[in-house]
Amino acid sequence: MSRRILIVGTGLIGASAGLALRANGFDGEIIGTGPTEKTLVTAQEMGAIDAWVAREDADAVAAKSDVILLAGPVMSILDWMQRLSPVVGERQLVTDVGSTKVTIAELAAKLGYNEAGKARFLPGHPMAGKESGGAALAEAGLFENAMWLFTPVAGACVSELEAEWRGWVAKFGARTMDLDAARHDEMCAWVSHLPQMLSTALAALLEETFGRDATGREEVAAIGGRALRETTRLGASPYSMWRDIALTNTGPIAQTLHALEQRLAHLRENLRTPELKEEFLRANEFRKRRDG
Amino acid sequence: MSRRILIVGTGLIGASAGLALRANGFDGEIIGTGPTEKTLVTAQEMGAIDAWVAREDADAVAAKSDVILLAGPVMSILDWMQRLSPVVGERQLVTDVGSTKVTIAELAAKLGYNEAGKARFLPGHPMAGKESGGAALAEAGLFENAMWLFTPVAGACVSELEAEWRGWVAKFGARTMDLDAARHDEMCAWVSHLPQMLSTALAALLEETFGRDATGREEVAAIGGRALRETTRLGASPYSMWRDIALTNTGPIAQTLHALEQRLAHLRENLRTPELKEEFLRANEFRKRRDG
Repeated sequence: MSRRILIVGTGLIGASAGLALRANGFDGEIIGTGPTEKTLVTAQEMGAIDAWVAREDADAVAAKSDVILLAGPVMSILDWMQRLSPVVGERQLVTDVGSTKVTIAELAAKLGYNEAGKARFLPGHPMAGKESGGAALAEAGLFENAMWLFTPVAGACVSELEAEWRGWVAKFGARTMDLDAARHDEMCAWVSHLPQMLSTALAALLEETFGRDATGREEVAAIGGRALRETTRLGASPYSMWRDIALTNTGPIAQTLHALEQRLAHLRENLRTPELKEEFLRANEFRKRRDG
Repeated sequence: MSRRILIVGTGLIGASAGLALRANGFDGEIIGTGPTEKTLVTAQEMGAIDAWVAREDADAVAAKSDVILLAGPVMSILDWMQRLSPVVGERQLVTDVGSTKVTIAELAAKLGYNEAGKARFLPGHPMAGKESGGAALAEAGLFENAMWLFTPVAGACVSELEAEWRGWVAKFGARTMDLDAARHDEMCAWVSHLPQMLSTALAALLEETFGRDATGREEVAAIGGRALRETTRLGASPYSMWRDIALTNTGPIAQTLHALEQRLAHLRENLRTPELKEEFLRANEFRKRRDG
């Protein structure tokens, strides 16, 4: 059983994982590390971690931890995978919460994680979050009813630490599903990355069209209702997180965007033809399945 | 003061207007008419109208009503404007709730409404609704805090009946704003019709991509969260209502769709460049103004 867990990056997801571990009965030690002292202090004050070490001093703690949870954005996860690779060994589990999985799975293979005598690496992705990030918003219940995806290497045997970590995730109240890393990135492009990019594009377009025109701004504010609010809500998402997703899932995101561009053009060309009805019926069908 | 109001089309909006009139102290007679007996019976049972007449017999009642509220889809409003034009006269007000206003304003001018000795016509558009329509869902409070837009002919004098009707709309709890009909249709294309069309296109695209694939359907259901739900919610909207909007606001809708297509392509071409950051910042700015 794990006696020490190191959380690398104690923002919203990392600190919530610490709180959830504690709330669900983990009685070992939880140590935090990361780039920002303020974030670590907040996480400690909230009880998400027992103690923290500066990023420069983390190797020694990592070497003595049973589980290392990499909880920053994707690029920082890749950096830490590289850095910790020579530090961690056979009886340790490294797992992560990155939003894309192919680049992470490829680096894990390249670095030799999961090979005989090496540390295990279990790629994970909790689909939970809030409109803003940061340790201060962390909650033990953040993962309740959320989906926590795993993309384990096909055929790799499951270590005891991995089984234990999956057990904690279940105790957090998350649903889990295993899928292939490439399929993960493709599906997330459709259901998460495309809605984000669409919302960003629409909000940016409206900002450029009306942002410098006081009358236009007032009219948009006065007339815009729930439809506008919901389709632009994700426009508030921070670039800092989405940069890494766009960099590590460029192909699938570009494909889904291109498909949507063509679909919008098709609809535009059919505003006055019976095909508009067919398109509404297809959309009705999609919603019926989700609502029903 | 109005003693008799005729509501043409007692679906969600028409029946809610009847209930709202009654709830706010209108003590004259409210008569309903429309194409579907079942809808009229429901509206009467709910107390939205006192009595109803079949569509074929409505002319005589229209001739004796102070206010006639045209509350169907846009094409049916245009039909009724034409039909009632020879029936109504100087001391009567015809007003409507259609989602687009240029076609209606043009027909009103062509038919001679608002000319000396003719009935007044006040184009209106309450921005209220539910995901489903129908008299059974009508509520006296439907227009509370909603925006009720008017696009009166520039320079036309305000009749007493028009002032009274605006007073009722204010009593319903709606905010009101007057704007030019062309500006109305352009702004509604941006804040309402574009969000609808993009939600329909996205839901239809997902239906076509995953609808016939059981594994894909399950994965979409399991992985899709709030982002997907919100950006596809309007996909449930009925074609029956949107057909008329697409037919009577084709130009502005096509323009906004084309602008969004280009914006998505721009974002797609910049997934790995610093321009992605600029686009996120513009979108953040739009949301900050609306949330702040």
